[in-house]
Amino acid sequence: MEASHLIWTEEKRRERYRTGVMSLCDVECRSPEGRLRTFSVIDCPDWVNVIPVFEGSLGREFLMVHQWRYGSAELSVEFPGGVVEKGEDPEAGARRELEEETAHRAGRLIKFGSLRPNPAIMSNTVHFYLAEDLIPLSRQNLDEDEFVDVLRISEKEVIANMGKPPYIHSLSAAALAFYLIRK
Amino acid sequence: MEASHLIWTEEKRRERYRTGVMSLCDVECRSPEGRLRTFSVIDCPDWVNVIPVFEGSLGREFLMVHQWRYGSAELSVEFPGGVVEKGEDPEAGARRELEEETAHRAGRLIKFGSLRPNPAIMSNTVHFYLAEDLIPLSRQNLDEDEFVDVLRISEKEVIANMGKPPYIHSLSAAALAFYLIRK
Repeated sequence: MEASHLIWTEEKRRERYRTGVMSLCDVECRSPEGRLRTFSVIDCPDWVNVIPVFEGSLGREFLMVHQWRYGSAELSVEFPGGVVEKGEDPEAGARRELEEETAHRAGRLIKFGSLRPNPAIMSNTVHFYLAEDLIPLSRQNLDEDEFVDVLRISEKEVIANMGKPPYIHSLSAAALAFYLIRK
Repeated sequence: MEASHLIWTEEKRRERYRTGVMSLCDVECRSPEGRLRTFSVIDCPDWVNVIPVFEGSLGREFLMVHQWRYGSAELSVEFPGGVVEKGEDPEAGARRELEEETAHRAGRLIKFGSLRPNPAIMSNTVHFYLAEDLIPLSRQNLDEDEFVDVLRISEKEVIANMGKPPYIHSLSAAALAFYLIRK
């Protein structure tokens, strides 16, 4: 794929607004034809996403989390995941998020791949994993303001209903793509 | 799924910063236990994403777009898509984006489903479609600052390489999940 005629060059990045979880920047870029343009880009930490799978009474089943999402103001059933902490290895972050949210440890964690949540407007990466040989822990480890139910849902149910509420998270669908490819 | 113990109530939304493509808001929500908390939410228009498929010399092939992404500062090969215009029907937006970016019209457009790009921090929706019976048009219809190559890539290549550069867009992976489920 010859691509030099597609490549922009970043010349300047200035933070314009910062929240607890992201920084909004103006990024000045030079186009392949030499024009200078400014775009808005969100800098935020990397994320992890995990499909915890086990053999249940309904065949292959997933552990999923049921929680309120403020962004879209609705309930969502999705694969566990979250933010990689500063200095943390993504795989360690995946193990930690799985344990905190679902109260299960991964006996085996397999990397699916990495994607950009939104390469048009965000700079971060999301790393995807499959978790097998799940070991139950005594309890979830949630923040005071986290309200998360753990559900056991059959693979069949998720595949049949992705893209309809409550299966509305695009990163869960992306994780499912990796799962279906590997199957 | 009993869920009343998970539901937050939005009490106030205040815009804090606005760019050409998004508005960053502080959203004040009351937790299921009655505590008041403020979260950052990005409001932006809905998006569409289309998998254009045809029978090529390599079997099933996709039309994909190769372009620079300022957010992650890299080249990306992804399914065509973009922003739904104000007052535009999502299906019309999907047809328009397909035509502008790939210079092909969809003889048949099938809705896959809808997802939230990021329900934790964004309020918008992305609608996914499969485009079949593709009709070539004379040329792309790009803005002055859009540099987009159209590629024909086998289904096999995309499935084998999703999650590795240049197949890095999470929404392309989500679209692929719908495609694989329907297969």
